Amino acid sequence: MITLYDLTFDKDLRPSPYCWRAKLALKHKGLAWRDEPIGFTEKQKIAFADSTTVPVLHDGSKVVKDSWAIALHLDQAYPDKPLFPNDPAWAYARFVNGWADASVNGTIFPMVVGDMVEVARPQDRSYVIESRSKRIGTTEFAAFQKSAREKGLATFRAALEPARRILKEQPFLSGATPAYPDYILFGTLLWPRTISPKLDLLEKEDVVYTWRERMFDLFDGMGRKAPHA
Amino acid sequence: MITLYDLTFDKDLRPSPYCWRAKLALKHKGLAWRDEPIGFTEKQKIAFADSTTVPVLHDGSKVVKDSWAIALHLDQAYPDKPLFPNDPAWAYARFVNGWADASVNGTIFPMVVGDMVEVARPQDRSYVIESRSKRIGTTEFAAFQKSAREKGLATFRAALEPARRILKEQPFLSGATPAYPDYILFGTLLWPRTISPKLDLLEKEDVVYTWRERMFDLFDGMGRKAPHA
Repeated sequence: MITLYDLTFDKDLRPSPYCWRAKLALKHKGLAWRDEPIGFTEKQKIAFADSTTVPVLHDGSKVVKDSWAIALHLDQAYPDKPLFPNDPAWAYARFVNGWADASVNGTIFPMVVGDMVEVARPQDRSYVIESRSKRIGTTEFAAFQKSAREKGLATFRAALEPARRILKEQPFLSGATPAYPDYILFGTLLWPRTISPKLDLLEKEDVVYTWRERMFDLFDGMGRKAPHA
Repeated sequence: MITLYDLTFDKDLRPSPYCWRAKLALKHKGLAWRDEPIGFTEKQKIAFADSTTVPVLHDGSKVVKDSWAIALHLDQAYPDKPLFPNDPAWAYARFVNGWADASVNGTIFPMVVGDMVEVARPQDRSYVIESRSKRIGTTEFAAFQKSAREKGLATFRAALEPARRILKEQPFLSGATPAYPDYILFGTLLWPRTISPKLDLLEKEDVVYTWRERMFDLFDGMGRKAPHA
């Protein structure tokens, strides 16, 4: 018998996104469960799980807290109808690709756009100035870049959080060895490294920094040896 | 023979993150290529590919533009050392999990925190007020939420862009059928739907909206039928 502890609000409303993950995962598996609503001030109900947050799943002798651990447990204990299907193999990379383009590259651009003008080839410079000033709404590149770095570094680092969470658990985004998801993000970081090498994007204590060092080592130090300004 | 057109800056600097993806993918495959630098004002060099941007890959009789298409081409034409390995199967979901938690949920919270207080159970209300006001730095929940909605809706929609890009290509984040990545994001959207049902988070023209409709239909309309305020 499975029991799920689900955060409840007034009138039996159940908004918790993390509890929803667990409920949807149970449904996907076709598993029935006993619903145990729990309010903010009833944490004693889940003390047995050594948890102060929900969802908590009680499955036979197994007690599982945290929605991610619950999903892993369900796929292991009930292998039918996998929550983590193998197909398509490129789906993960596709998501990382969209994430890098839409959520990361845009946080870097304002911090390096001034240097981009500086390192353009003489014959390309007016093209770069015209196209980039249109994007940033000014031709004062140096001032714009300086102010962007003051405000933007924290935003950039926050944008890396999804990668950081995976890299705390494994050496590469793709697991034990690098694959295309790693190349996507590494390519993104080689861009500021090439044109703005003095910009310290990552802190040494950051797992993304450590991962980047591993990426620098790949292919005979291809990224590390690449010319930079 | 493979030729790669790579954006060049002065002093042969090569910063383009998209070209880096292609170069790293070629290296991963152990493939040699002829390097063809191209400046911003030399787009005639890639006119044969019907492209105005790089990378462009010329591989025998095949002409491929766009870094993603290049990665797919390389994995298809040279199946050894896959860029998209199948293992671990949970990696994609793990990334989506971190992305939802770190980049999406935080954009929703300020827009619903006032309603969260309203729909708390009477016995939980002071707990919710105390813990949530600490997070937002004020006890003026209604005013805070109103202002957050004015500023925050665009930020929230922008944060969904990685999902949007995949959902333009396939019905679910996981492919033809839903799996855990879909439940993660759907759970996130059921949270505001439950406590702030009048808040129009998504526009009807958005593929995320259409996907959410499909998710509402799952499991006998479980999400659609869930009580909301």
